[in-house]
Parts: sequence; structure tokens; C-alpha cells
Amino acid sequence: MEKKEIYLESLKTATPQEGRELAIKLARKSVAAIQTDGEIRKKLRNDYAQDTAQLIASSQVIATEFQTIAMANNFWK
Amino acid sequence: MEKKEIYLESLKTATPQEGRELAIKLARKSVAAIQTDGEIRKKLRNDYAQDTAQLIASSQVIATEFQTIAMANNFWK
Amino acid sequence: MEKKEIYLESLKTATPQEGRELAIKLARKSVAAIQTDGEIRKKLRNDYAQDTAQLIASSQVIATEFQTIAMANNFWK
Amino acid sequence: MEKKEIYLESLKTATPQEGRELAIKLARKSVAAIQTDGEIRKKLRNDYAQDTAQLIASSQVIATEFQTIAMANNFWK
Amino acid sequence: MEKKEIYLESLKTATPQEGRELAIKLARKSVAAIQTDGEIRKKLRNDYAQDTAQLIASSQVIATEFQTIAMANNFWK
Amino acid sequence: MEKKEIYLESLKTATPQEGRELAIKLARKSVAAIQTDGEIRKKLRNDYAQDTAQLIASSQVIATEFQTIAMANNFWK
Repeated sequence: MEKKEIYLESLKTATPQEGRELAIKLARKSVAAIQTDGEIRKKLRNDYAQDTAQLIASSQVIATEFQTIAMANNFWK
Repeated sequence: MEKKEIYLESLKTATPQEGRELAIKLARKSVAAIQTDGEIRKKLRNDYAQDTAQLIASSQVIATEFQTIAMANNFWK
Repeated sequence: MEKKEIYLESLKTATPQEGRELAIKLARKSVAAIQTDGEIRKKLRNDYAQDTAQLIASSQVIATEFQTIAMANNFWK
Repeated sequence: MEKKEIYLESLKTATPQEGRELAIKLARKSVAAIQTDGEIRKKLRNDYAQDTAQLIASSQVIATEFQTIAMANNFWK
Repeated sequence: MEKKEIYLESLKTATPQEGRELAIKLARKSVAAIQTDGEIRKKLRNDYAQDTAQLIASSQVIATEFQTIAMANNFWK
Repeated sequence: MEKKEIYLESLKTATPQEGRELAIKLARKSVAAIQTDGEIRKKLRNDYAQDTAQLIASSQVIATEFQTIAMANNFWK
């Protein structure tokens, strides 16, 4: 059912900023793995971007993904 | 009550991408452990795939499972 | 108020699969510690097993418990 | 505002089972720190023990507290 | 926008009990960073202290902050 | 779609207090990455700052981001 697209080659990123961008990408890919119809996702996204509770919940997902990425990069020390 | 199916042989995966796929699988198996009727799950899934709050909540589960898997694979370093 | 039943002898399990089963058990025992009436729990469970938001929330609990168990087993490496 | 009662002498417990009990205690003490009126808490508890969404959310708190306790005990290895 | 008050000098505490108190303080300071009007916070607090779902959600924040504090103190071993 | 602004140069901060401020900043930047219209965010923020459930959920995001930052700074030991 999932797309066979490879969207995660490595958890390593050159900078913390790129780590944030990867965290956001992973969060989006999880939604895409469940709701596989891109048109429906686009429509849904317009809705939740106006809903603060869902924006905050999305930020929580990003925070969790980022923690994993930061660990993988030894916190970019 | 749980099915005796073995769905988790190992937390090791060859690649980070396969780690994502395992995280999604574990999240689904948890739902299946509670709602054991596959027909009901199928019907429920159609509903929540249209509900952004639930898509985000599912992404949170995937993020947590993935963190565990990433640790188990030493972040594929 | 809690039952004096010993339900957690050890976090060690022989396999990752048994780790999943222990995670599910711990999640259930937490509910039982708060709602001590087994008859009420049985009735409540029929309800939430049809509610995707609650199935997902339960999966989050399982994911967190499993992370602890996986750490305790050094990820079954 | 918080009660000066000492309810956490140590994170060490003799057994994993006692670790679960401590996790449940910590979760309860957090609620008590915010809602300091014991009579109100008693009344509220009757309500949420019938509400599966809240039972699951409480189980999540217990899972997080237990993870900390398990780490503190080196997972009772 | 945030107040320049220094409320976190160190994550070190003398005892686990003080670690709990610091966790509660950090949770409150986060709310204060977003809702900067103390009068509004006071009014809001009266409301949520009667709402079990929010009491439980607050306990989750405390559990997460406490985990960080416990790690910082090497679990007061 | 994301702004190319660099908002995270490093997870290192001089003090725990600055770590809290960075955690709050990261939480806000996640919201901004999803809802890119600053005017809409401003309007939404007025709403959720009055909603305790959302204030608590935001505090949870901050707690998670802070845990990552605290680890990256070896807890400012």
C-alpha cells in the first residue's frame, strides 16, 4: 500500500537546520503513508493549517522526529 | 486474545527507510491487537484517513516507534 | 486501592515479539489500576475499540512502553 | 501552593512491579499539585475512570513516568 | 515577547522531590511564555483545574520535564 | 514551501535558561513551517493563548524540544 519511494537515505544531516527540515519531511511522509491520495492530503492540509490544535499536534510530531535525528547526528557537536 | 502471529522478529533493518516501514507496521499492529476484527479495522481506517487530527496522532505513534528502531540500529551510523 | 497482583516480574523478554506483548500488557494494567472494576473496563473496551482516535492513543501508550522494554533488553541485539 | 509533603524520596525501587506503582503514584501527585483540593479530585476521578479517552491519556503519563523510573533502576538488570 | 526573568539557573536539584517541583515550575513557565498576561492565566487555571482531561495533559508535561531533570541529575543515584 | 531562513545554527546554549528560550523558538518555527502565513498565525495565536488545552499541548512540545536541547548540552553539567 505504501509508495516504494525512498525518502530517507540517512538520518545524517550537515547542520541542525537541515535536521529540522528532515524532521518536517518525516512527519509529512507518515501522513502520506496513511492517506495515500495526494489530492485528499492537499485539501486536508488547507484545513488543519488553520486549526491551532492540529498545528500544535504537528509540532509535537516534528519535535519527536527531530529528537531522533539530533541523536543520530550526535547533536551536531 | 492477541493473535499469535509473529510480526516482529527483530528491530534491525538494513536501511533507515526500512526502519520507517517497520515503524508504520508496528503502529498498525498495535491497533490490530486492540481491535482484532480486520473488517472493522478496514472500515475505521477509511474514516480516520480523512481526519487530519487522527492522521497527525498516527504520525506521532510512528515517530515514537521509529525512535526506538533508530536506537536499535545505532541510527544506521 | 491497586490490586496487589504482581504483573511485572521483569522487563526482560526472550524476543522482540514478546516485548510487544509485554508493552500491550503494561498499557492494559495501567488502565486497570485506575478503573479497578473489571466489568466496567470490559464495557468500556467495547466502546473504544470502535473509536479510531482512542485506538491511536492506545497505540501511543504501547509505543512508549515498548521503547522502555526495548531499552531494557538492549534492543535484543 | 504545592503541598510540602515529600512523596518522592528516591527513584530506586526493589522490583519492576514497585516501579509501576511508583509511576502511578507520580502521575497522581502531578494532578494533586495542580488541583490541590482533595475533595474535588475525588469527584473528578469518579468521572474520568469511566471515560476511556482519559484512562488512555492517564496510561500515557504512567508510561512516561515508568520509563524514567526504569532508567533510574538500570531497568532492574 | 518572553519575560527576561531567569527561572532556570540549573537542572541540578538536591533531591528527587525538588526535581518534581522544578518539573512543575517548568511546565508553568511554558504556559506563561505563551500567555503572558498573568491575570488571564489565573482565570484560565481555575477552569482547567476542574477539567480532568487537562489535568492529565498537564501531568504528561510534568512527566516529560521530570524525565529531563532526572537525567540531568543522573537519577539522583 | 518552507522559508529558507536559518533559525537553528546550533543546539548549544550558554545556559539552561537560553535552552528554554531555544525550545520555545523551535516550537514556534514548527508551526510557522506548516502555516506559512504570518498574519494567519498572529490571529490564531490570539485564540489559542486563551485556550488552556492548547496552552498545555504547546507546553508539551516545548518540553520535548527542551529535552533534546538539554541532552545536546550534556544538561549544562
